[in-house]
Amino acid sequence: MNEDRNCQWRIARRPEGNVVADDFRYTEEDIPSPGNGQFLLKTYYVNVAPVMRMYMSGQSAAGETPLAIGDVIHGRAVAEVIKSRHPDFSVGEFVHGQVGWQTYKVSAGSKQERFRKVPDLGISYSVALGSLGMTGFSAYFGFVDCGKPRKGDVVLVSGAAGGVGTHVVQIAKIFGCRVIGIAGGKSKCNLVRSIGCDDVIDYKAGNVADQIASACPEGVDLYFDNVGGETLAAVLENLAMHSRIVLCGSISEYLLDEPFALTNYTQLRRTNTTMQGFFIYNHVDDFDRAERDMGEWLKTGQLKPVEHIFGGFEALPDALASLYTGKNYGIAMVRVRPGPYDTVN
Amino acid sequence: MNEDRNCQWRIARRPEGNVVADDFRYTEEDIPSPGNGQFLLKTYYVNVAPVMRMYMSGQSAAGETPLAIGDVIHGRAVAEVIKSRHPDFSVGEFVHGQVGWQTYKVSAGSKQERFRKVPDLGISYSVALGSLGMTGFSAYFGFVDCGKPRKGDVVLVSGAAGGVGTHVVQIAKIFGCRVIGIAGGKSKCNLVRSIGCDDVIDYKAGNVADQIASACPEGVDLYFDNVGGETLAAVLENLAMHSRIVLCGSISEYLLDEPFALTNYTQLRRTNTTMQGFFIYNHVDDFDRAERDMGEWLKTGQLKPVEHIFGGFEALPDALASLYTGKNYGIAMVRVRPGPYDTVN
Repeated sequence: MNEDRNCQWRIARRPEGNVVADDFRYTEEDIPSPGNGQFLLKTYYVNVAPVMRMYMSGQSAAGETPLAIGDVIHGRAVAEVIKSRHPDFSVGEFVHGQVGWQTYKVSAGSKQERFRKVPDLGISYSVALGSLGMTGFSAYFGFVDCGKPRKGDVVLVSGAAGGVGTHVVQIAKIFGCRVIGIAGGKSKCNLVRSIGCDDVIDYKAGNVADQIASACPEGVDLYFDNVGGETLAAVLENLAMHSRIVLCGSISEYLLDEPFALTNYTQLRRTNTTMQGFFIYNHVDDFDRAERDMGEWLKTGQLKPVEHIFGGFEALPDALASLYTGKNYGIAMVRVRPGPYDTVN
Repeated sequence: MNEDRNCQWRIARRPEGNVVADDFRYTEEDIPSPGNGQFLLKTYYVNVAPVMRMYMSGQSAAGETPLAIGDVIHGRAVAEVIKSRHPDFSVGEFVHGQVGWQTYKVSAGSKQERFRKVPDLGISYSVALGSLGMTGFSAYFGFVDCGKPRKGDVVLVSGAAGGVGTHVVQIAKIFGCRVIGIAGGKSKCNLVRSIGCDDVIDYKAGNVADQIASACPEGVDLYFDNVGGETLAAVLENLAMHSRIVLCGSISEYLLDEPFALTNYTQLRRTNTTMQGFFIYNHVDDFDRAERDMGEWLKTGQLKPVEHIFGGFEALPDALASLYTGKNYGIAMVRVRPGPYDTVN
């Protein structure tokens, strides 16, 4: 990365299957200057999320203009306002929002970029991509508003070692639930246990439906689904009465050639189960509440961010590919440069 | 039918595909006598419902002991107490509950038979198999409790000409909704229109998804699903924000060799849609409320039963088969003999 240039990752071609190096193109430009009503941002952390492969494929997730070949890849980031000719953004302030995969950006603070100020909680501002960003908010609204948890509920979380999953596990404990996490492999299962899971299912270690039945003998009260596919089908065979399923993501399905075929959705009937879909940008009006509650839990230490930080702007393509190989954990992000409260060796 | 004998329909063999004549065996026995704590019932109307084929296949719907070959087929019926040695059941009272496909029954009034008294509303007691029985209650709890209708909602009902469907359509109008019914063929569509539907979709007359999109340009707020399968998949492409799907039945799937594969359940996410399964016997504790509300609507004429009455006990096997051929409408039942308020030519 060249500190004196705006470094960028662009779409070289539409990905087929998982993203590979040749799908990306690295470019450099002069650092732009803000015009009237604009400000200049300097990037510190860039979020890496499955939705970015969708962007690269030319799809739109929340009404954005689809990206063309050659465009800078979309991505939320934490950035510092270093020049400003905009009344609402002052030099020295940190914001998070749609910056894209680049080290500088000139913006007019449009609604679509959804900028929010980073609150100072005395911890690394990377938290604005995790607990206080779309990942943490997805966990919050999916679990609290859609899942309607009750104390003592048996809560099952798939993708429990992931960005959303590590938040759901901890929020469920705050709500007094018994929490079972599903993850793949020993080290992820250890991680999930370390953040408070009462029980862990290693989906690589045996039949998932059998493991759920044995971990939840009275059935699952609340299933928070980050993976979809066969795991969802297995949960449908193990539901408690009046249980709830929150559909947040279906990463196991994203790379399938044919859409996943769910053949046992009628299991929802026997137990009067509610399966609710959920999309974070349908909750924009309530973001302040999530920020307040999550901020409180961060301050009291009830919620601890689990971050998987890839070093350097150059790492972005590899970091994205890792999401589909099952190697990542926690909130995946690239640190472009160290920011306030960062303790970097 | 022999008036002086207990006539019965029994399982001759497990059905394959739709039921056919050879799956049934007709028998006669002496009319039984009630012992101490028992009473003798005389059958007037026998309900015909898709669940009965499940019973014949040896499956259990609500915890009943599965039926063996040779057993009398399960079925709810309206019957008169004609002898009694039971304190809670008096001669001359009419009840509805698990009588089975037979013209007399001795019972001890067990919990599993779920007997309820037939309220006298000045209309045929057959209403206890429709609006005031499990069919009407399914419509009530599915629509009111699970569907959570709001005035002005765009409500879509599949199987709208069926027993549950004709009730949902009318209840939805009572709640001030705009109601679109899906049915197959001209005469059923006319029936559905005649009971108050604002618009009707004939699933035999063209692509269902296209017809839904055109009838519900702002999307569907509440879908009451009686059929499952491709119709459900088509609705998932036409959802309004914060919409609700109530899964009551899936008759289009019951005779498939392979379970139906739903490939677009993830559509629930974009619109924060809730899909709730529903099973009538999970609502037993609230039956009194349904009976009171439905009884009120029947008395005021806001709700009109739509009955498809097959003549005579002999007609039971044909009546059941008709459920799977798309020929039935309204509440399907067999009238064994005319009862109070019956106007039979």
